[in-house]
Amino acid sequence: MDDRVRVGLVGLGRMGRFHAANLAGRIPLADLVRIVDADEGVARDLSEGLRGVEWSTNYADLLEDSEIEAIVIASPTPLHADMIEAAAEAGKHVFCEKPISLDIERTYEAIEAARAAGVKLQVGFHRRFDPDYRRAWQKIAADEVGEVYLFRTSLRDMQAPGFDYIKGSGGFFADVTLHDFDTARWLIGEIEEVTALGAALSDPGFEEVGDIDNAVVTVRFAGGALGVIDNSRVAGYGYECSSEVMGSRATLRVDNHRRASVETLTPDSSHQDYVSDFVERFADAYAAGLESFARAVREDRDPEVSGADAAAAFVLAKAAERSHREGRAVRLTNEMKDGEVFYEEVD
Amino acid sequence: MDDRVRVGLVGLGRMGRFHAANLAGRIPLADLVRIVDADEGVARDLSEGLRGVEWSTNYADLLEDSEIEAIVIASPTPLHADMIEAAAEAGKHVFCEKPISLDIERTYEAIEAARAAGVKLQVGFHRRFDPDYRRAWQKIAADEVGEVYLFRTSLRDMQAPGFDYIKGSGGFFADVTLHDFDTARWLIGEIEEVTALGAALSDPGFEEVGDIDNAVVTVRFAGGALGVIDNSRVAGYGYECSSEVMGSRATLRVDNHRRASVETLTPDSSHQDYVSDFVERFADAYAAGLESFARAVREDRDPEVSGADAAAAFVLAKAAERSHREGRAVRLTNEMKDGEVFYEEVD
Amino acid sequence: MDDRVRVGLVGLGRMGRFHAANLAGRIPLADLVRIVDADEGVARDLSEGLRGVEWSTNYADLLEDSEIEAIVIASPTPLHADMIEAAAEAGKHVFCEKPISLDIERTYEAIEAARAAGVKLQVGFHRRFDPDYRRAWQKIAADEVGEVYLFRTSLRDMQAPGFDYIKGSGGFFADVTLHDFDTARWLIGEIEEVTALGAALSDPGFEEVGDIDNAVVTVRFAGGALGVIDNSRVAGYGYECSSEVMGSRATLRVDNHRRASVETLTPDSSHQDYVSDFVERFADAYAAGLESFARAVREDRDPEVSGADAAAAFVLAKAAERSHREGRAVRLTNEMKDGEVFYEEVD
Amino acid sequence: MDDRVRVGLVGLGRMGRFHAANLAGRIPLADLVRIVDADEGVARDLSEGLRGVEWSTNYADLLEDSEIEAIVIASPTPLHADMIEAAAEAGKHVFCEKPISLDIERTYEAIEAARAAGVKLQVGFHRRFDPDYRRAWQKIAADEVGEVYLFRTSLRDMQAPGFDYIKGSGGFFADVTLHDFDTARWLIGEIEEVTALGAALSDPGFEEVGDIDNAVVTVRFAGGALGVIDNSRVAGYGYECSSEVMGSRATLRVDNHRRASVETLTPDSSHQDYVSDFVERFADAYAAGLESFARAVREDRDPEVSGADAAAAFVLAKAAERSHREGRAVRLTNEMKDGEVFYEEVD
Repeated sequence: MDDRVRVGLVGLGRMGRFHAANLAGRIPLADLVRIVDADEGVARDLSEGLRGVEWSTNYADLLEDSEIEAIVIASPTPLHADMIEAAAEAGKHVFCEKPISLDIERTYEAIEAARAAGVKLQVGFHRRFDPDYRRAWQKIAADEVGEVYLFRTSLRDMQAPGFDYIKGSGGFFADVTLHDFDTARWLIGEIEEVTALGAALSDPGFEEVGDIDNAVVTVRFAGGALGVIDNSRVAGYGYECSSEVMGSRATLRVDNHRRASVETLTPDSSHQDYVSDFVERFADAYAAGLESFARAVREDRDPEVSGADAAAAFVLAKAAERSHREGRAVRLTNEMKDGEVFYEEVD
Repeated sequence: MDDRVRVGLVGLGRMGRFHAANLAGRIPLADLVRIVDADEGVARDLSEGLRGVEWSTNYADLLEDSEIEAIVIASPTPLHADMIEAAAEAGKHVFCEKPISLDIERTYEAIEAARAAGVKLQVGFHRRFDPDYRRAWQKIAADEVGEVYLFRTSLRDMQAPGFDYIKGSGGFFADVTLHDFDTARWLIGEIEEVTALGAALSDPGFEEVGDIDNAVVTVRFAGGALGVIDNSRVAGYGYECSSEVMGSRATLRVDNHRRASVETLTPDSSHQDYVSDFVERFADAYAAGLESFARAVREDRDPEVSGADAAAAFVLAKAAERSHREGRAVRLTNEMKDGEVFYEEVD
Repeated sequence: MDDRVRVGLVGLGRMGRFHAANLAGRIPLADLVRIVDADEGVARDLSEGLRGVEWSTNYADLLEDSEIEAIVIASPTPLHADMIEAAAEAGKHVFCEKPISLDIERTYEAIEAARAAGVKLQVGFHRRFDPDYRRAWQKIAADEVGEVYLFRTSLRDMQAPGFDYIKGSGGFFADVTLHDFDTARWLIGEIEEVTALGAALSDPGFEEVGDIDNAVVTVRFAGGALGVIDNSRVAGYGYECSSEVMGSRATLRVDNHRRASVETLTPDSSHQDYVSDFVERFADAYAAGLESFARAVREDRDPEVSGADAAAAFVLAKAAERSHREGRAVRLTNEMKDGEVFYEEVD
Repeated sequence: MDDRVRVGLVGLGRMGRFHAANLAGRIPLADLVRIVDADEGVARDLSEGLRGVEWSTNYADLLEDSEIEAIVIASPTPLHADMIEAAAEAGKHVFCEKPISLDIERTYEAIEAARAAGVKLQVGFHRRFDPDYRRAWQKIAADEVGEVYLFRTSLRDMQAPGFDYIKGSGGFFADVTLHDFDTARWLIGEIEEVTALGAALSDPGFEEVGDIDNAVVTVRFAGGALGVIDNSRVAGYGYECSSEVMGSRATLRVDNHRRASVETLTPDSSHQDYVSDFVERFADAYAAGLESFARAVREDRDPEVSGADAAAAFVLAKAAERSHREGRAVRLTNEMKDGEVFYEEVD
């Protein structure tokens, strides 16, 4: 008997194609049924490489397909909230790439639509599914670290994306730091205060579009611990995602990944293959995230990352942006509703 | 259209179950159709966890199933050669766990049976499919290393298997060093001379069964380079498989793997998760080896590791054993037949 | 002919005894002539272990000894400024442990006294003389890093000193972060803005004495780069001093030191000897700092770290403290006088 | 009171000048009184840089100087044995660079001369005084390793010295492997069997002078453990001296040294400063060896490395050479005389 979750996928850009490959070949519990993209050529070409997967240019084809239980949304950000609401109305579970929306009210509306319809809503914070970060999380849960004093994390791109991308990205903090805020909340706990310092250093273009390319963000956790996030779009040497949790019993380090454990020694130099971007670094994590989503659907339990988690990270990113612009600490409060956390800036 | 290679699997011990899981969920180009084990309970239980996979206690059921194109043999070693010959006769391609036989004549007969029947025969040297070793191999092929001076490799188990296993293993060199001989030939080239030194150190039981638990083997390659292999059944700290190639232009190092890139620092100590055995270390490599086999079948090309490769490693292992027993260097010669290499001891 | 610099040493606490051992045995250009401590037993006992070194309980004995050219001051901080002024008046060059004073006006007066008397004044920022940091500094000077985007540094003690020490330390930022401000200025350049976040987490005693045990400090450099410093008194796993400079051409990392390059592997664990405190970590740097001072005296050139450098780091530490207390960024300005930099808070 | 050991030094080549600098500035317990070299210019020039050190072109000036208690011999190898004997006759303690002689009988005669005269004789095996190796040795002595299974060590030069040096070196095994035999005996214990495999790979010149440039040597220890040494004159990437001891309780690794803990990351590459030769790698060890010698003299106890240790390593090196030439294992026996070990080949 085939108990796989029948999945439709909308949006076949870089992330969408990556999800399609995973759904077709690496997620035993998922059965990719249909892919949708506004560009007919893109949809048809991709479906030809995937055995038995239908294609369409119309999102409604997913909604109306009674075989489909769940929809993976990888379309451009401005479409996310509408698509979530439509899916919820059609009774389909949703896995949506982050962010849900660049507008916090729309974010909350989409979350509420899913909740009201009783469908699962999981957001694509892949780092929660990375084996290394997962191991760190388990060690913290097992109280190996003791009381946390400091959380330190680096997220750095090797090269900046083009300015077309930057302009629609929602800004540096919402596009980059967002991931670190989610990791910080997941590993350490809720955040009370955010201070951010940003700069446009590598290219005058960043200043022209009103954005930055490097930032340092400090946080104070509700539990008392301090945190520091450094982010860059232009690290140059490679993609870096590494973290440290210093506590009373032990200090954990999640080191940056190498592509392969091969070292080439030449006079004075050791070449190592650093990963060059997040897709390479988190290939396993993306697959594991979809697998977890399929399992949540099949076993009818809460997804491991909720819409409220996405909203929380977004509010924190916006607080960082305000802190950066106003040169002061921004304090936040949060409250629990229906088992989910909701953040708000205090001043 | 489903162009997957329909596969049958025989032998559901540790490796067989591992291959079954890979064939069922991680090899897009393979379709596991039927599993066979002499133990009815084992076969039935496993098939229940695998959607749509038939089970049987009779190897003939695989041979007679006209749907099946290829057979994966993971049964006990004494059955390998007979099963290869039967599969060849039935026109099925074969992926067989190493060694083909503990008898070199039977090894050659099985290889010849496959050749005569025109079926593919691939042997389970997983390290050739490991991403790290593959990267090293590419660098050597790209002449990044220059003339090779030294090849150094370590293969060490954390803990010895039981003496029941040891007794049927074919001896230390055929069971352990075999893998390193294959890697040495693959990365560096053919071998002319083998000198081996072994010892039974950790448990008197090794001496009682006429075996050893530690060995150092040196080789001289036809190209002039020197090589050294160290092996242990009792490394204690973890499973280790690491190598070094020192050459005129560069020195390559394939480092040992960790389970996760997480380090736990406590006073005076850094805990790291070493992998504990070869199944954990080479999980990806096992899957990649089966995928490569399925592709060789579907695309009708030579497998990446042939029966002759298995025979070559076996002859080298036997030469090491003789060197160890007689306290002298053993010289070997090799010749090419039909594009395959065949080794023989010189004296 | 003996051209060594004849040195007197005052203050035989932990740092004083350490300097005494260096001056007696590791600094070829220094000749330790006399040691002074208020505690007669301490002074006499130590002199017995040092061949040909006189002892005294009276600082004036150093000032009046016409043989002595230079004085190393390792007495308690409240005595530093007075002792510098007295030494300057007596025409002796001065090497003084940091800080010069916990009062910035007294700091400036002592600096001025040395300047007016024409004697050298070097302050004990040992990190500038550490071979690893020195190498990083050379690479930056050789423009290997390009434009700097981010400076990141960690300074962490394994265990907190007693609260008696804490109470007289001048506060966390002046006692700990001070070193990082000096390193930041030395490696990257002048600082325009400081934001600090501190917490008392490990022991209620810190709050009782009005101090903290962990802090994160971000800075904005005049050149545009961002910086982040994390400090702790209670890192637990060992003493850490490591830094990173990310730039447009390359990223430098100064890794933490191990006591020895020996790794002990046991199941699941790798023991490494981390250094346990700054004296162990910077043993070579302390000696090199004194050697540099002796050379500055003998060759009549400016010391590599001046009194103004000490004052600058102190003003920055005070700015960090204000930022921490007031929850806002503190901006600073600086101007050059007689080739030395002088900092001031802007608001 | 000055209780320093008054030392004379003969031979001012590379090692001699290095010892001179150490004796003059880094060995508190040694007082370098006079230096001797056949080349007047060399001796005079060096003495000018060393305060208060006399110079001479005549070895007899050291022997006749009643102030001198100990002589450091760094002259060319063919002079070592005669100089040791002359020093012994004059009642001077001796520190001699290795080897004592390329003739084992002369080696034994020189050792006996020192023994008969009651003077200390220490040989320059610097690795015994290296902090890293010392730490490993302490851990073994503290039984942290348990029963030893495998000793593995690499000693590799970055670049070969000139063929003039090679011709007078006594051959590869006596010049290079000698150090590893001493380390093996020191860390693990006596050796019963040696098998060596050598090759001349990097330059036809090695074969022309009847020597090799790479070798792998396996040993069997009396305690049962296996050992493997790899050596190269042409490692290319840098100087390497690293070792591993695998035992029943733990595995120790002494890693190769870097010049500084600074890493430079550029796209795809991490530059690290490897040490380039043994003088740089073992700078501290050379000083510590001389300090230990001075202490042995002053405290009248046995040196930490004896003449018999040098003879043992030399006999083992000669056995390796025979094994290499004859293509067979060479067995050795050893016996204790007066607390010292003496090796002999069995066949």
